[in-house]
Amino acid sequence: MIKQKTKDALKQIVGEESFSDQVIDLVAFATDASEYKNRPDCAVWVTSTEQVAAIMKLANQDLFPVVPRGAGTSLAGLTVPAEGGLVMDLGRMDKIIKISLNDRLVVVQPGVVYADLDKKLTPLGFFFPPDPASGMVATLGGNVATNAGGIRGAKYGTTRDYVLALEVVLPSGEVLHAGSQCIKSSSGYDLARMFVGSEGTLGVITEITLKINPKPTETATAMATFPTLEDAGRAVTQIVSSGVLPSVLEIMDRLTIKAINENTDLGLPDVEAVLLTETDGYTAEEAAFQIERIMGLFKANNATSVQMATDPEEAAALWAARKSVYSVLTRLNNTVAVEDLAVPLSKVADTLKIIEEVGAKYGLQLPTVGHVGDGNLHPGIAYDRTDPEQAKVVHAAASELLERVTAIGGTLTGEHGIGMSKAPHMHMEHDAVSMKTMRSLKKLFDPNNILNPGKMALES
Amino acid sequence: MIKQKTKDALKQIVGEESFSDQVIDLVAFATDASEYKNRPDCAVWVTSTEQVAAIMKLANQDLFPVVPRGAGTSLAGLTVPAEGGLVMDLGRMDKIIKISLNDRLVVVQPGVVYADLDKKLTPLGFFFPPDPASGMVATLGGNVATNAGGIRGAKYGTTRDYVLALEVVLPSGEVLHAGSQCIKSSSGYDLARMFVGSEGTLGVITEITLKINPKPTETATAMATFPTLEDAGRAVTQIVSSGVLPSVLEIMDRLTIKAINENTDLGLPDVEAVLLTETDGYTAEEAAFQIERIMGLFKANNATSVQMATDPEEAAALWAARKSVYSVLTRLNNTVAVEDLAVPLSKVADTLKIIEEVGAKYGLQLPTVGHVGDGNLHPGIAYDRTDPEQAKVVHAAASELLERVTAIGGTLTGEHGIGMSKAPHMHMEHDAVSMKTMRSLKKLFDPNNILNPGKMALES
Repeated sequence: MIKQKTKDALKQIVGEESFSDQVIDLVAFATDASEYKNRPDCAVWVTSTEQVAAIMKLANQDLFPVVPRGAGTSLAGLTVPAEGGLVMDLGRMDKIIKISLNDRLVVVQPGVVYADLDKKLTPLGFFFPPDPASGMVATLGGNVATNAGGIRGAKYGTTRDYVLALEVVLPSGEVLHAGSQCIKSSSGYDLARMFVGSEGTLGVITEITLKINPKPTETATAMATFPTLEDAGRAVTQIVSSGVLPSVLEIMDRLTIKAINENTDLGLPDVEAVLLTETDGYTAEEAAFQIERIMGLFKANNATSVQMATDPEEAAALWAARKSVYSVLTRLNNTVAVEDLAVPLSKVADTLKIIEEVGAKYGLQLPTVGHVGDGNLHPGIAYDRTDPEQAKVVHAAASELLERVTAIGGTLTGEHGIGMSKAPHMHMEHDAVSMKTMRSLKKLFDPNNILNPGKMALES
Repeated sequence: MIKQKTKDALKQIVGEESFSDQVIDLVAFATDASEYKNRPDCAVWVTSTEQVAAIMKLANQDLFPVVPRGAGTSLAGLTVPAEGGLVMDLGRMDKIIKISLNDRLVVVQPGVVYADLDKKLTPLGFFFPPDPASGMVATLGGNVATNAGGIRGAKYGTTRDYVLALEVVLPSGEVLHAGSQCIKSSSGYDLARMFVGSEGTLGVITEITLKINPKPTETATAMATFPTLEDAGRAVTQIVSSGVLPSVLEIMDRLTIKAINENTDLGLPDVEAVLLTETDGYTAEEAAFQIERIMGLFKANNATSVQMATDPEEAAALWAARKSVYSVLTRLNNTVAVEDLAVPLSKVADTLKIIEEVGAKYGLQLPTVGHVGDGNLHPGIAYDRTDPEQAKVVHAAASELLERVTAIGGTLTGEHGIGMSKAPHMHMEHDAVSMKTMRSLKKLFDPNNILNPGKMALES
């Protein structure tokens, strides 16, 4: 519990109007897009690095947890105040400080929404490639803290590949400037990238410098249906090693297709798997050459149908099914847990089979979509969270899934992060030395365990 | 000094024949490709992770420095045993453990030479993009430890963008497995990338998993000459923001051209600057579209000549001058110090002027080449190291250059690392909090300062 004296000090720092301990705010800040929930004691809306630094100093003096938060779109509980304390909302630090095409970079505050940056970059012919599905609301601070990915990872990598520099307020209240505005540097330890994916447990990101790319002007889109998962999996493997690099390669499995057909009028064929792909380039020939090679591999792997879009409307139509998935799943029940596994590329087909087997064992339907171009799969579980028995089954199934996937070289999370949902599973992927090393880093930066405690299994 | 008892223990670990304290070996291991020199007490050639672990345990017990070493091609003294001790040569750990196109990765031991991996990947249609100029001899362990770059950084990034996983022997002798064979992961702290660019000061890299890319089959090459540095610099800035992404964009300045003309029969025109560019793609149209846009910008910025290669022989001819630079410079005197600055892309022209001014002030010729597509410039200084007065002037000039370049947002090193040569300059780029953070990381991992001491200003 945060004492009144501390609350008064917080008000001094941010101003009366930017502090709240009213129930309506605490309820809102108790959750994110995950199933987890815990109320903070109070919340502040910060507007400057200086405020963040003053708050961290206070927190280390009065010893209360601080949970930095952007838009709260985490699917893994990264921004739930697991141990109460203070929620620090960075959403008002939303300035795009600089867009410099001549330097090929942008400088932003952490509260800038992905889509708002994209809207500014598009007319300039540039883009920031990692585009999480929540990009319409998610903030770039959160993207950096989670190492957000998206559907273009196969060709363009993830957030960590674009972070050039960060301003970070350390738990001590000191302000760290890591990295530089140079595209290339080998100058000392790579401190900036240490904070990428650190989930707000090592420092509070207050300014971000991101490399941007000239956006390819031409794209080509194609979709194929497959009679078996094996055929689709083999097609993925052959595409990956075929000498071209699709910008997008997505899968939808049978249960996903069924759910879409039962809840929309898109009328997909009743098949085991659909692959959807996009290629890009600065010329139509480049996009076409790649899409043709990929369509050839679709056909060579028994695709029952292959469609290529010939104009943007047709491309949008091919994308409609994929884009409907999340909203379709949310109609199935009151809770959708979106799992987030990634596996070595050659293990995609095996993993789809594992997902089927685990679903069958626990009597659950696990419709799966995924960014198979980078091995990232999202089984969805629609269930009734208010039924403790169902919740128990879902958690047991998720745990078995992670156990089996890490056993074949997979990772617990491709892009959502560990947070609360995967913390109990950290040991499956990371051995004792690895856990010890992570915990020692946490202790070095945050000896009083002030910042976002209860995440990532950093405490045991 | 390492005691005889410790030497005997080292022999026990690696075998009598893989240990040496003979002068001929100690002299060889006293230097790398930099100007620095200091003899170790002894050397071992290791062949396994277990040997490395046993040696680290011994080093922490008997307290002697350990300097991991690959091919010793460092231009910044990264592998010079600054404080004596043991040189640990990893060159015999040279197995390519796995090439998996289906997983889009390779697993190698640290002693594998870049060119040997490239030779295996080329016939498969794949490549590992970061290609340091020393790639014919440099080892991948060194590339990772230095975060090596090369000429393709603008489009393809540097080594850090390709490291998926590392096996690292920590100073304690514990073996850390960081990262995974998944292309995408957000699972816990990014320990693998922490060791990229850490210059052998945090751990000894014993196994490396690298992402690889399908190699574009088509390239186009063009060269242009410019009457002023300003014209060339403006061309670079406009190319960078023009919406295409050259795979290579190189500059040579007047002094470089002069040195080439005086020492070869290549007969370059007597101009202020030459830009050389390569574009690539999976289709000839993609490469051609980009090269045409770039040649248009060459012309728009007063290029006095623009040549495009129409076949591989012509391309090789355009490259001949650029490739001759290092050997030309080495003919000028007994020592060539290759500086390694990087600046924000828009500062390339300013930096070339700064280099000229500093050269003039100290009476030095600083012929400069560079990878301007990513802002990385290499002024070369040919001088007589045996003349202490000359060496003093060279060091003073380098120091002033770094001071002025960091003042406009540049970084001390784009790809060679800090090592011994830039250690005294760390404070120019990294503020007190940043230095304190780096030093605390070093202390956390290596409390006895065993691993590669005397580098990166980690000790003061």
